[in-house]
Amino acid sequence: MPARAEATRLFPLSRSPPPCGGRENRPRRARSKIRSMRLIATGRLDYAVSGPARFFINLHALGTPSQRVERESLRLHPPDAALLERPAANGAGRLVAITSDVDLRISYEAVVACSPDLRPVAEVAAWPAAPLDHGRAAYLFPSRYCESDQLGRLAWQKFGHLETPYARAGAIRDWIHANIAYVPGGSHSGTSACATLVQRAGVCRDFAHLGVALCRALNLPARYATGYACGLRPPDMHAWFEVAIGAHWVAFDATRLAPLDGLVRVAHGRDAADTAIVTAFGPAVARELVFSCHPADEGRVFVPAPENDRVLIGEA
Amino acid sequence: MPARAEATRLFPLSRSPPPCGGRENRPRRARSKIRSMRLIATGRLDYAVSGPARFFINLHALGTPSQRVERESLRLHPPDAALLERPAANGAGRLVAITSDVDLRISYEAVVACSPDLRPVAEVAAWPAAPLDHGRAAYLFPSRYCESDQLGRLAWQKFGHLETPYARAGAIRDWIHANIAYVPGGSHSGTSACATLVQRAGVCRDFAHLGVALCRALNLPARYATGYACGLRPPDMHAWFEVAIGAHWVAFDATRLAPLDGLVRVAHGRDAADTAIVTAFGPAVARELVFSCHPADEGRVFVPAPENDRVLIGEA
Amino acid sequence: MPARAEATRLFPLSRSPPPCGGRENRPRRARSKIRSMRLIATGRLDYAVSGPARFFINLHALGTPSQRVERESLRLHPPDAALLERPAANGAGRLVAITSDVDLRISYEAVVACSPDLRPVAEVAAWPAAPLDHGRAAYLFPSRYCESDQLGRLAWQKFGHLETPYARAGAIRDWIHANIAYVPGGSHSGTSACATLVQRAGVCRDFAHLGVALCRALNLPARYATGYACGLRPPDMHAWFEVAIGAHWVAFDATRLAPLDGLVRVAHGRDAADTAIVTAFGPAVARELVFSCHPADEGRVFVPAPENDRVLIGEA
Amino acid sequence: MPARAEATRLFPLSRSPPPCGGRENRPRRARSKIRSMRLIATGRLDYAVSGPARFFINLHALGTPSQRVERESLRLHPPDAALLERPAANGAGRLVAITSDVDLRISYEAVVACSPDLRPVAEVAAWPAAPLDHGRAAYLFPSRYCESDQLGRLAWQKFGHLETPYARAGAIRDWIHANIAYVPGGSHSGTSACATLVQRAGVCRDFAHLGVALCRALNLPARYATGYACGLRPPDMHAWFEVAIGAHWVAFDATRLAPLDGLVRVAHGRDAADTAIVTAFGPAVARELVFSCHPADEGRVFVPAPENDRVLIGEA
Repeated sequence: MPARAEATRLFPLSRSPPPCGGRENRPRRARSKIRSMRLIATGRLDYAVSGPARFFINLHALGTPSQRVERESLRLHPPDAALLERPAANGAGRLVAITSDVDLRISYEAVVACSPDLRPVAEVAAWPAAPLDHGRAAYLFPSRYCESDQLGRLAWQKFGHLETPYARAGAIRDWIHANIAYVPGGSHSGTSACATLVQRAGVCRDFAHLGVALCRALNLPARYATGYACGLRPPDMHAWFEVAIGAHWVAFDATRLAPLDGLVRVAHGRDAADTAIVTAFGPAVARELVFSCHPADEGRVFVPAPENDRVLIGEA
Repeated sequence: MPARAEATRLFPLSRSPPPCGGRENRPRRARSKIRSMRLIATGRLDYAVSGPARFFINLHALGTPSQRVERESLRLHPPDAALLERPAANGAGRLVAITSDVDLRISYEAVVACSPDLRPVAEVAAWPAAPLDHGRAAYLFPSRYCESDQLGRLAWQKFGHLETPYARAGAIRDWIHANIAYVPGGSHSGTSACATLVQRAGVCRDFAHLGVALCRALNLPARYATGYACGLRPPDMHAWFEVAIGAHWVAFDATRLAPLDGLVRVAHGRDAADTAIVTAFGPAVARELVFSCHPADEGRVFVPAPENDRVLIGEA
Repeated sequence: MPARAEATRLFPLSRSPPPCGGRENRPRRARSKIRSMRLIATGRLDYAVSGPARFFINLHALGTPSQRVERESLRLHPPDAALLERPAANGAGRLVAITSDVDLRISYEAVVACSPDLRPVAEVAAWPAAPLDHGRAAYLFPSRYCESDQLGRLAWQKFGHLETPYARAGAIRDWIHANIAYVPGGSHSGTSACATLVQRAGVCRDFAHLGVALCRALNLPARYATGYACGLRPPDMHAWFEVAIGAHWVAFDATRLAPLDGLVRVAHGRDAADTAIVTAFGPAVARELVFSCHPADEGRVFVPAPENDRVLIGEA
Repeated sequence: MPARAEATRLFPLSRSPPPCGGRENRPRRARSKIRSMRLIATGRLDYAVSGPARFFINLHALGTPSQRVERESLRLHPPDAALLERPAANGAGRLVAITSDVDLRISYEAVVACSPDLRPVAEVAAWPAAPLDHGRAAYLFPSRYCESDQLGRLAWQKFGHLETPYARAGAIRDWIHANIAYVPGGSHSGTSACATLVQRAGVCRDFAHLGVALCRALNLPARYATGYACGLRPPDMHAWFEVAIGAHWVAFDATRLAPLDGLVRVAHGRDAADTAIVTAFGPAVARELVFSCHPADEGRVFVPAPENDRVLIGEA
């Protein structure tokens, strides 16, 4: 639809942080990379707006040592919607504020070179508890969708006998996978970790919230992460949880639906309240949200890394 | 009880930030100070502990331009409890971590020179909306006890017709004061803003959470603040809410129970989850929590500033 | 699809109670009837079933003095689903139990002669509080979706100054109508009165639950009623609330979306838990629920009674 | 305190149903009685009242085939509080309504001859599912504190593999006993089954609510019962749950704190909303609630029946 393309405006957003050029020289990380792949991630939002409304969106791929944003574009229609990019409010993310009082279409596309930091399970399992610094303490306390304050007894009852941080977080991931049914439509935007624990059903967001809440109840700093995901069926934004272990944030996906090495990280924070794809103030109603993620190079087949013996390390 | 005093250990904590010596020269602030007063704040916690437990406490007076900590002590019994002071995890606060596997007593005492920044209502009422930066955006989204995502319709219905940030936040404070009954024991540690809105009763914590949640629902960054309070009957820790207006954080106390110029700030954050006096992990049960605040200088009478025509500005 | 029609089985259900032949002789009631009309009500349910499941359905028109079921049929597909009609578990309703372990289609159709008991507002407004007997006391206490125990302060705050039962219940209906937005999709099956009070949006079910809960909090026995409704756009089952006043149950519809004299009562009870169209145990997922209601006599136009000056009296 | 005794008024309440004289002739029941005992049950309520208030109380011992009320008295102070006894609103119970606008003291005492119907486990374990009649269907649906609608997946996941009603209900009792900690003060009047499931702590009320909710989620009719309990430490009212199996209601006590043959039944209903010791409307605040239960015959020692091999059958 060329007319629409002309009517939209391409925003030259502030570039994401450049990749660390010298990174490959660091022997520890070099050892842990199994491969790199270029992925194309797209997101499209369509909102009916009937008055002055403000949107905060988390759609942009983060630039991190493991993830280099080669190209990206954000198109708005109508093109005169005010726009302001901000660093993340909480956690990491390239929060963008948009103001509109008419129907709004947003589309984002990025080409991202991903070289995920995957480690052998045996290595991660030996890491000690993370030292408690400012950045980690922020992730110890309950948040909107992760009422860890309610879950102390249950968490210690089920997982307190395990000794290491990785054993506890891994057992939480496995328990969620075994006990919570993945049911699209089985939850809603207000569903929290406690509701998921009761109802035993949810989607990736709910699985991640429950993982975060159970870890925090065990005094393990835990955060919620979102991103585009290759190989997810049906295509959608994905969410997982990350736990501070040793000097790292270790990723856990209790849904086991997306290969850990096919993720394009968009944001992380205390929970979905910090990293929502869209937070809208005012009279706006979502009509469509569509996401996709696939390899950028024609003919290249995405071969997920075996998940059983590798662990994904999240951005520091 | 000298025996106990000997058994405890006085921790020389890292000093709070020194007061800005040149502050008095700044004409804008000098104009807004009405007076300075030295206050003594004390807190005493007593916990039954039946196994390894970790405590995070927010008891220490903050050092800020308006609040200089002249002397302070933290005593633990038993004295060998491990202790570690950290900057606040979220917001501001001097979060302290303590580990103990036996019954624990904590007592804190500070002498604080307070020179609150009080402004005329007319001045604050004219301030525009705060620009949205990183520090403020963190306070726009829902949190554990402030489910602003549920309150959009109600907030716009009741307060959306008002035009300025101060008018909206002030009307929220007044509405809470008029509609929520102050009932000690009428809420519990899990009570959130939505529950308070339904039950129409609570304590300072609940009043502040509701204020925060309603402001955020209106797209006004809002945070929760706690501190010692002179003149509170019965003596207790106090809580209020603060809203980003213009270049400042403006304090609102919907309980109207404590003079705004008799507060010793301890912490602020997204809600009580970030600033809890105590967050305990493990088998610990509170037996007693006692707080007090009074003028340090014998014979000096605390005369609260008239609250109707002055507005307290929070720490930046 | 004739094959399907042949495959279904028509169940000759126990007849609803015969109309009271002598009713017209009672002067009080005769005076209050404005007109009678024959209505056709239909309901169609379609469930995907993947294992042994049991359904309890409330689809049948009640037979009452004001409502005579002239003809009705319930068709099931597959026809061998076990079926058992029971009087209502709570309140009134012709609860039917169905067992199936394959996909299930249910269709109901009835022709009902309705002669609603409509009274002038002035008459009802003068009725005193209902005496508390067994039947009414059942409707004083909180239930699944009507947490009246949480609403005492708010209810007395807003409506306690009004003196008569009708004034209080009428003010509750008007307050709900004015403050809660009718938003299809704005609530879900777990939404309760307190959630609706907070979110300020819902559908007929939520409006009725909130009305019930607020009345009970004021010590007024109140129940939830459902039925087919002429003139509802889009066509759906409808719900309203009824309050014990004097010797009667008085109907209130806070949505004001359906004419009170075009209703075909299906059930009433403590709330939607007692009167749910379908309560399913086991692996069943709803695919479609469709309802309709229109005048039975061709060419006859449905002219709603003016609602402002008439009050509908519910079945005793 | 004679003065007070004189000031109170003894209400000659309607007698509870007389014991079935011919009962002992029925061979089936005679076989199952192990012994009879006379118990004294007392309850004392003290309320601060600051305006017109209405109380509904469930304090009276029920008269049932297994439980004969030999003597009882209810004393009110002030004595002119209006009083009205009613049959239970829901379930069974001798609901009493009291109106007062000044401080109110209520004391109840009864001597009750109990001959509990205890059956061997092997007998009950063989009973089939209860046929679904009106009386049982009332107990299939969710209620205020038993949100069985939320618990379907969890209940089938944990208990669905068991085949008989007794096996399922017994496994639910055992699971609650093993997984929920009995913690006085660990819950509050608004705590529901789902909250208890999450928090893993509560008192007898919470244990019973969770048992009821899990049974209903499995399509087993279940009700909540309360009464005085011999041997409970500290003395208090007790609560347990009952499940329709075969032709009976079978009692289960997940707390295992009170001997099943030392109970004096007061009420049963859908949950604590139907059977609350006190439901107060208006400005009333509880100051004291004290209960006791002990053998009436001096020198007679209460010897609880072994609970592992006997099952208590509730009133039909």
